[in-house]
Amino acid sequence: MKSLTEYLWMNTPTKYAFVNITPQVEELVRKSSVRDGLCLVSAMHITASVFINDNESGLHRDFAEWLEKLAPHEPISQYAHNNGEDNADAHLKRTIMGRETVVAITQSKLDFGPWEQIFYGEFDGQRRKRVLVKIIGE
Amino acid sequence: MKSLTEYLWMNTPTKYAFVNITPQVEELVRKSSVRDGLCLVSAMHITASVFINDNESGLHRDFAEWLEKLAPHEPISQYAHNNGEDNADAHLKRTIMGRETVVAITQSKLDFGPWEQIFYGEFDGQRRKRVLVKIIGE
Amino acid sequence: MKSLTEYLWMNTPTKYAFVNITPQVEELVRKSSVRDGLCLVSAMHITASVFINDNESGLHRDFAEWLEKLAPHEPISQYAHNNGEDNADAHLKRTIMGRETVVAITQSKLDFGPWEQIFYGEFDGQRRKRVLVKIIGE
Repeated sequence: MKSLTEYLWMNTPTKYAFVNITPQVEELVRKSSVRDGLCLVSAMHITASVFINDNESGLHRDFAEWLEKLAPHEPISQYAHNNGEDNADAHLKRTIMGRETVVAITQSKLDFGPWEQIFYGEFDGQRRKRVLVKIIGE
Repeated sequence: MKSLTEYLWMNTPTKYAFVNITPQVEELVRKSSVRDGLCLVSAMHITASVFINDNESGLHRDFAEWLEKLAPHEPISQYAHNNGEDNADAHLKRTIMGRETVVAITQSKLDFGPWEQIFYGEFDGQRRKRVLVKIIGE
Repeated sequence: MKSLTEYLWMNTPTKYAFVNITPQVEELVRKSSVRDGLCLVSAMHITASVFINDNESGLHRDFAEWLEKLAPHEPISQYAHNNGEDNADAHLKRTIMGRETVVAITQSKLDFGPWEQIFYGEFDGQRRKRVLVKIIGE
């Protein structure tokens, strides 16, 4: 069994952001020299997300508006967690979008459908956070 | 390490559908001859889902109604993505239901609780799409 | 490849509960003697959840209230599934929170960010249920 463990550092200039991390993950798959296996990509922080969807800016605006409706940031005081914090909504938003994704590696590549791309979803940014990439296989 | 990679083709006659794919996945576990390992089942299209829940038709109607409330199809124009498209809601619905599931294989079987079944969730059907099954273990 | 399969029994005294199961999972990682691999933790019942978030009681109250808003328990009769049952909402709540999580094992430990903890989420408790822990790696 081969394995590779790497960490991607993120620091988004805005509070909310979606960042396409597919190229970095593809590079790590090459580096691992795994032909057949699994690739776990997970947010190491609990107000951020890793998910797979379409690389389309209109859709990303839709996601942001929709998440704001399902888990609004304001009023801050509506959340018990916001006692010296203001990011309770970020925990809820990340829950909707998911913490992690597991992608198959086949013939040394991410085994993706035509539109699948991996995104980092930030809901409480402007600070350094990490994404974990763990590859196992052979 | 053994591995198996297979693709299930889906083409639902309706726009929305839940399809029980447990028998096909069980057959692939047998074919893999993996006794102990992990089985990833994932939707390769970003308007479809793979999830685990109960095989109960009333519950499936509840899921459909609930998703329509959380991410309504209409009005189409409410979504920035719907610029020549009309499936933005399908991307949101699939996000709630999830892209993938990872199931343990123990003693050559899917290691399931009493009611767990694997479903393909289609939110923009009437076209050919694929589900990936990746099994690794020994 | 090494592997370990264990089941944690849960029986919460209340209908709704979040239980921190990180210590038990850490103990199983030690027992597996896997240095590098993946750890799947999944709810074996379809009205329960396994998820990763913060161990903060205010946030847990926020999660409970939020889930009640997104998928209310009452009126019971609003759900087709509630035909002799009253737990349709529990299936929906578990869908939001997720069935499973996959955590990397690096240097014989759960490879966690600073605040990540694993929780069992119960939405129809007061009965015995199981959580599966499957570890593979070497």
